[in-house]
Amino acid sequence: MQRQKILINGERLRNQLELFANYGRTENNGVTRLSLSQEDRAVRDYFCDCCKELGMSIAVDDMGCIYATLKGIEQQPPILLGSHLDTVKKGGRFDGVLGVAAGLEVVRTLVENNIKPRVPITIVNFTNEEGARFEPSMMASGVLSGKFEKSIMLKKTDTAGITFEEALQATGYAGEAKNRLKEATAFLELHIEQGPILEKENITIGVVECVVGMVCYEIEVTGESNHAGTTPMGMRKDALFATNNLISEICQRLGAIDDELVYTIGRVNVFPNIHTVIPNKVVFTLEARHKNPDMISSVEEVIQGLPQSIAKADCEVKAVKLWDRDTVWFDKDTCNALEQSAESLGYSHKRMVSGAGHDAQFIASLVPTAMLFVPSVNGKSHCEEELTAWEDCEKGVNVLLDTVLALLAN
Amino acid sequence: MQRQKILINGERLRNQLELFANYGRTENNGVTRLSLSQEDRAVRDYFCDCCKELGMSIAVDDMGCIYATLKGIEQQPPILLGSHLDTVKKGGRFDGVLGVAAGLEVVRTLVENNIKPRVPITIVNFTNEEGARFEPSMMASGVLSGKFEKSIMLKKTDTAGITFEEALQATGYAGEAKNRLKEATAFLELHIEQGPILEKENITIGVVECVVGMVCYEIEVTGESNHAGTTPMGMRKDALFATNNLISEICQRLGAIDDELVYTIGRVNVFPNIHTVIPNKVVFTLEARHKNPDMISSVEEVIQGLPQSIAKADCEVKAVKLWDRDTVWFDKDTCNALEQSAESLGYSHKRMVSGAGHDAQFIASLVPTAMLFVPSVNGKSHCEEELTAWEDCEKGVNVLLDTVLALLAN
Repeated sequence: MQRQKILINGERLRNQLELFANYGRTENNGVTRLSLSQEDRAVRDYFCDCCKELGMSIAVDDMGCIYATLKGIEQQPPILLGSHLDTVKKGGRFDGVLGVAAGLEVVRTLVENNIKPRVPITIVNFTNEEGARFEPSMMASGVLSGKFEKSIMLKKTDTAGITFEEALQATGYAGEAKNRLKEATAFLELHIEQGPILEKENITIGVVECVVGMVCYEIEVTGESNHAGTTPMGMRKDALFATNNLISEICQRLGAIDDELVYTIGRVNVFPNIHTVIPNKVVFTLEARHKNPDMISSVEEVIQGLPQSIAKADCEVKAVKLWDRDTVWFDKDTCNALEQSAESLGYSHKRMVSGAGHDAQFIASLVPTAMLFVPSVNGKSHCEEELTAWEDCEKGVNVLLDTVLALLAN
Repeated sequence: MQRQKILINGERLRNQLELFANYGRTENNGVTRLSLSQEDRAVRDYFCDCCKELGMSIAVDDMGCIYATLKGIEQQPPILLGSHLDTVKKGGRFDGVLGVAAGLEVVRTLVENNIKPRVPITIVNFTNEEGARFEPSMMASGVLSGKFEKSIMLKKTDTAGITFEEALQATGYAGEAKNRLKEATAFLELHIEQGPILEKENITIGVVECVVGMVCYEIEVTGESNHAGTTPMGMRKDALFATNNLISEICQRLGAIDDELVYTIGRVNVFPNIHTVIPNKVVFTLEARHKNPDMISSVEEVIQGLPQSIAKADCEVKAVKLWDRDTVWFDKDTCNALEQSAESLGYSHKRMVSGAGHDAQFIASLVPTAMLFVPSVNGKSHCEEELTAWEDCEKGVNVLLDTVLALLAN
């Protein structure tokens, strides 16, 4: 099959994204479309209608994932495109839905150019990637890949006490296990970066090599509460000041490990948290991410090397690992194919890592997988201001199309 | 009148304290006796009964303060003894009630020794010193001294929405404004130290020269939230790390001001406080106390000299003063009299400051006032473990009696 030089329709892609955003659009032009909500059910129906209009057939698996398939000439494992249609509360118009809209635009371009693909093209919508209504995130892809136990996931509840299973039944998207993703020629997920790197470096396309590994600890510093007015400084066991010194030390040591290491103290709780009482306890989380497991080991050495007590403040320190995950490397050939497409289209591109989690990291254990990033304005996501320039969306989908054509030509 | 060498009855004092503790005693041998609660009403009735048995007359003012008076030979302004019978939730058996029990024991000792005092002796129970049910603390003494507006105080509500006025009426202790404290020869308040100094220095009696002045600021550090996984360290506006550096700087500067300065960061709130999100805001309180207003000024200079923005983290810093209060100096002659009594009784003693607030600091603007402290085991108070050795209680009341006798002899 001859490789064809065709491009997608940028305006149609933009319209498609805006039509999707009508399902749950907020007054500040963001989107609230929690997994298996009324809005999610409606956008699923709309997505299926779009696919049917293109002559695609619909299958739904037992976790509610939708697979829309354009028949191929050969009965081979499909090329899989897609992402997720759910959002966080007051999320944006791009996270997730861009990958699904990209799949539709690729198929539309094939259809309008009368290209009958050699292998089937399947667009997938994974259920509950965000985990905003039902924890954990990447729930369905986690079940498909064997990372999560289905029976446990079905019992997960939202804040109203509704189980995932009940919500799934109510949408009418409780399908059959036999429809689950089993094999594919490749899975290509286009997603917004959700970080500032591409924009900062003025690069359009990120070829994602891996989702970085991470580790998360909870650290507890215990001192003693006393009256803020009656206890001289030298007789205090002030857990807050002890924690402050500890954090300074942690930052200094982690900062020396590697430039690419990211580490965050996101949650800090102080007890009893009264302005006239010396704090007796501070509990905080420390999470760190890096693609190289040696760097994560170095972080753990720093944490395990923390003093068990801070002599000066007479406080105890206890660090407990909450969880960790290994780096997931994407398929080299698929990454190369995406990179070659970006290059042949004349777009600026770079290899990068994903610091955030994506369905692709679970699917990577099932089929050859890779991801593409396009720039996020100001690095923002999971908020109503979330934005990716329309021309960057268009270029991202053009890379996707070109790679699909390359795979079809193999 | 000849100065008599008599001592109080330590065992009787101890029994009295335990009898008071029966009103609201907790299972861990602490006391919960919130202001104007059922327990407070019952202990008030019991206190009045004790006073009547001693031949004292009872008056109640419009804030519910009880004045029990033993008649004097001369119609002079009374010597005022006492403190408060209310406690915090799960408080101790000594805070407040010691000063009231001390008054009873002094009067009992006078009566059993057939001493008819030259001037009247009045034992006072101030309403709502703790402010644990109705804020602010020292409410009644604040109204008596003109620091608080009565009409505003009456409308203060507890967590159940009951106003102070309703609770006061319900106890039957809503008296008349004409009964308010107007003049006195002296007010002597015996109280537990609520700090570790006397115990640490192995001293029995603290002669309190002042209640230290203080200042309280709220400091807000604002950065920008971003995804903890996708934002390189150099591109973050991390409000938590910025705050950590700021607190280190504050501690370094405040630590250099004066050894007697105490400063506390008691309340810290981090936003959004999610482990995978870089904090965009940290709000914390900083309060500092010192008897010398110049030292408080130095603290304010440090706070006002903080950078308005932290260049490295690209965060904004805003400091707002929440409130301050000046140092209240007690009456020199009355302090001297207390000191002389401790000396003449052969008890170890020292001059000290109060870092905590007490009714005496408001009453000091009305009548000659001074306070006595006795040691708190481990410096603890406002908790069930609150403890002062019985022999220290006894010695404190002996100093009080001796000073009363000295004042009567004048």
